[in-house]
Amino acid sequence: MMDKISIKQLLQSREEIDSICVKGWVRSVRRGKGVAFVALNDGSCFASLQIILDPGLENYETVSKVGTGACLSVVGKLVASPASGQDWELVATEVILVGDADEDYPLQKKRHTLEYLRTIAHLRPRSNTFGAVFRMRSALAFAVHKFFQERGFLYVQTPIITANDCEGAGEMFRVSTLDPSTPPQKDGRIDWSADFFGERTGLTVSGQLQGELFATAFSDIYTFGPTFRAENSNTSRHAAEFWMIEPEIAFADLSANCRLGEDFLRYLVIYALENCQEDLDFFNQRVEKGLIAKLEDLAKAEFRTVSYTEAVELLQKSGQKFEFPVEWGHDLQSEHERFLTEKIFSGPVFVTDYPKQIKAFYMRMNEDEKTVAAMDLLVPRVGEIIGGSQREERYDMLTLRMADQGIAEDDLSWYLDIRRWGTCPHAGFGLGFERLLMYLTGMENIRDVIPFPRTPGHAQF
Amino acid sequence: MMDKISIKQLLQSREEIDSICVKGWVRSVRRGKGVAFVALNDGSCFASLQIILDPGLENYETVSKVGTGACLSVVGKLVASPASGQDWELVATEVILVGDADEDYPLQKKRHTLEYLRTIAHLRPRSNTFGAVFRMRSALAFAVHKFFQERGFLYVQTPIITANDCEGAGEMFRVSTLDPSTPPQKDGRIDWSADFFGERTGLTVSGQLQGELFATAFSDIYTFGPTFRAENSNTSRHAAEFWMIEPEIAFADLSANCRLGEDFLRYLVIYALENCQEDLDFFNQRVEKGLIAKLEDLAKAEFRTVSYTEAVELLQKSGQKFEFPVEWGHDLQSEHERFLTEKIFSGPVFVTDYPKQIKAFYMRMNEDEKTVAAMDLLVPRVGEIIGGSQREERYDMLTLRMADQGIAEDDLSWYLDIRRWGTCPHAGFGLGFERLLMYLTGMENIRDVIPFPRTPGHAQF
Repeated sequence: MMDKISIKQLLQSREEIDSICVKGWVRSVRRGKGVAFVALNDGSCFASLQIILDPGLENYETVSKVGTGACLSVVGKLVASPASGQDWELVATEVILVGDADEDYPLQKKRHTLEYLRTIAHLRPRSNTFGAVFRMRSALAFAVHKFFQERGFLYVQTPIITANDCEGAGEMFRVSTLDPSTPPQKDGRIDWSADFFGERTGLTVSGQLQGELFATAFSDIYTFGPTFRAENSNTSRHAAEFWMIEPEIAFADLSANCRLGEDFLRYLVIYALENCQEDLDFFNQRVEKGLIAKLEDLAKAEFRTVSYTEAVELLQKSGQKFEFPVEWGHDLQSEHERFLTEKIFSGPVFVTDYPKQIKAFYMRMNEDEKTVAAMDLLVPRVGEIIGGSQREERYDMLTLRMADQGIAEDDLSWYLDIRRWGTCPHAGFGLGFERLLMYLTGMENIRDVIPFPRTPGHAQF
Repeated sequence: MMDKISIKQLLQSREEIDSICVKGWVRSVRRGKGVAFVALNDGSCFASLQIILDPGLENYETVSKVGTGACLSVVGKLVASPASGQDWELVATEVILVGDADEDYPLQKKRHTLEYLRTIAHLRPRSNTFGAVFRMRSALAFAVHKFFQERGFLYVQTPIITANDCEGAGEMFRVSTLDPSTPPQKDGRIDWSADFFGERTGLTVSGQLQGELFATAFSDIYTFGPTFRAENSNTSRHAAEFWMIEPEIAFADLSANCRLGEDFLRYLVIYALENCQEDLDFFNQRVEKGLIAKLEDLAKAEFRTVSYTEAVELLQKSGQKFEFPVEWGHDLQSEHERFLTEKIFSGPVFVTDYPKQIKAFYMRMNEDEKTVAAMDLLVPRVGEIIGGSQREERYDMLTLRMADQGIAEDDLSWYLDIRRWGTCPHAGFGLGFERLLMYLTGMENIRDVIPFPRTPGHAQF
C-alpha cells in the first residue's frame, strides 16, 4: 500500500507528481457533467484539496455521491489547477470509501452557529473555524515552550491536586474519594483525615506558590498547565478549567517582570503571524476584521507603563462617563482598563503599583506602605491579558501581610521557608492561555478556544 | 546595577572576563589561610561556580562565613582555574549577601537519603540529585513537543474534569462543589444534578477517547497532560497524579503504531544523550552505573516484535521459574515482561495481539476473534514503557464489545459518532512521562521524578 502524504505537504509541492496518496474527510461534493469534484480535508492545514473524479473510475457512481463527512483514501496525479484560489488539484485514479457518512451527519456544508457547534464539540474540529482555532492553539502552545526554553527557563509541572486553600485566586473544586453518601465523621464533622490524601484537597487555582519554590533553585522557571475555578459565572470569558502560563524569575524586580511580559507577548504575536498565516487570514476575513493589522501593530508597539495612582487620575480627568466610578483603592473595571489602553494610551500599557488592599498577600510592599509591586498588562480590545507582581521576599513583611489576610503561617510554612533561608527578590506573572488565544484569533467566547470546555452545567464529552 | 549572567553561560566562556555578575545559592564554603572558596549554584546547570574570596573584600568576615543555602550576588573577574575539574573560577571584587541561611537550613552539605529529601520537597530542587532530575524533566518535556510538532502532529489539551466513568484505565477521584456535610438528596440518593456540572464528575484517567475525536479531524494528534488514579497503592511506580503523553494517528494500523512508538522513544533517548550530558554523567556515576551505555544501546537497538501468543510459548519453554505461572489468557506479570526483554530478546520488544478479555473495549478485534490489536513496548530494567492499540473503528464491532463489558451506548454516544460518520482505522499509545524519566535517570521511585508527588496520604506543598 502506498504511504499517504499530508495535504499540507502536497499543497507545498513545487512540481506535478505522477502518483500520490491522500486520506481525509469530505468537506463538499459537486457533481458536474461527466466529472465530480470533492473537497478533501485532513486537518493538516486550512485548505482542502480538490479531487477530480472521472466517470472512468470503477466505483464512480458510489464515490461521486458520498456525503459530507465521509472518509476517503485517494490515489491520483497531482496537477496544476486551472481553478482560481488553488495551485494544485488531484486527478483521482483510485478512490476507496473508507467510512461513509449519511445525511444525518450533523456538520453538513452550511453555516452553523457557534452555539450549535458547541453542542457537537466532538465534530466541530472538522469545521473551518475550529480547525483553525485548534491548529493555532497547538502552534501557540509550542511557541510558549520555545520562548522559555530558548531563554534557559526550566519548565516545572506544578501539582493539580492541592491541599492549599490560600492560593489566593478563587473558589476551589473539592477532590475526594470518600463515600459521598456516608462520609466518615469525627466529632460531628466530616473526617477528612480518612480521605485519600489524609486531608481536605481541591484542584489548584494557580501554580505560582510552587513555581516560586522552583525559582529559588533554578533562577528562571515557568509553569504551563491546567488550573481551575469553581465559580458559577456564565460569562464569555470564564471557564471552570483553563490553562495558565506562569513564569517566575529570581533576582528580578517589577520592571524586569514587565520586560519579560512584553518580550513574551510580542514573541507570541510574531510567532502567530509567521507560522499561522493561513488560519489568521481566515480569522481576519470571517471573525475579526482588522485582526492581522491589530497583531502587526502590537508586534511593533511601544509598551507604556503607568502607575495605578496615575491611571486613576487620568481616568478621572478624562471626562468619560463610566458605569462604575473610578476611585483610588478600588479595582479597575474592564471598562476602565479598555479606556486606558484604547483611548488614553492607544496601545499596550502596564499598570503598576496597586493599593495593597485589593491585591494578594504575596505581592511585595512598596516603600509607601500603601501600594504593592503589582502589574497588569492591558491591551486594546481585551483589557487585562497578563497579571503579575514582584513577590514579598522579606520574611517579616510577608508574615505581617499573611496575618492581615488571616492566613495561618502553619498552612504555608514551606512557602515561608524560602524567605527563611537564602531569600532573594523575585517576580512573576500569569497569562491565561485561552485569553491569549481569544486575542490572537478574535474568537469572543472562551468556550470556542477550548477543545471540550467545562463551565457550570457542562462537562460533556 | 550590572546584569547577571547564568553560571551555565559563564562556564561556557572562551576567554577571561574582567567584570561579570552572577547570583545564586551557596552549596559549600571552605575557608583557607587568607582565602575562602564558595561553591555557588544557580540551577542553570549541574556545576557550581567556584568563587574566590580575598580578605581584601570589605565584608570578608561576613561573606566568608555564610552558611550553605545563603543567597549571594557576586561581581568578579572570570579567570582560568588552577584547580582540577573546572575550567573557570571567579575572583570576587564585590559580594552582596542577598539572603542569609543559618545552621537550621535543612539541606546542609552532606548525604541525605531520598526519603528525607521527600519531606523537604520545597528545598530538594537545590540538591545535586534533584537539580539534575528536574532539569531533565524540563528538557524531555520540550523534546516531547518538539518530536510531534516537527512531524505535523497537533497538540490537543484534553479535559481534566470528566463525566465519563468508562475511560477504562482505573479508579477515579470525584470532583464536586456540593456541600459534603449535607449534599442535596433526591429519592434518598445524592442529587448529582445539583452539582457544579449538573452530573457526577471526576478526574480523567486518560485523554485517549477525546484524542481519538481530534485524530478524526486533524489526522495526527498528541496529548500531554496530567492524569489521575485514585488507587491506594503505595509502590515505587505508582502516583495518584502523573503526566501522560498519548499520540493518536488516523489511517494507521498496529504496525504503524509500533513504528511511531519506536521512533518516539529513540528520539527521546537520543535527545537526552545530546542535551543532558552533564546531568546524565551524574546519574551514570551516582544513581545507575551503566546508565549511559544502556541509553546508547537503546538508541541503536533493533526493536523486535513478538505476538503475545508466541511470547507465552517462549516463556513457558524457557525453563525459568516464575513467581506467577505463565498462562495464555492472563496478563503478563512484570517478571515475565522483564524476562522477555532482558533475557529472551536482550533489547526492546513489542508484544502484540493480546487476548481480548484482558484488554479494554476500544481495542480492535483481530480476525481470530480471540485477540485484539494491542501492543506493549518492553525495555530492559523497566518492562512496559508504552502501551497502545489499534482502535476498533467498526461501529457494530465496537457496540458489541461495549455490551460485553457492560458499557451503555448512551454514555459514549459521541465516541460512537466517530464510527458512524467518516470512520477510519486509527491507532495510538500512551507513555507515562514519569516512567520515561525513571528510565532516563535511573531514579527508582516515581516520587523522585515528580516536583511535588501526590500519593496516598500525601498532598503536601
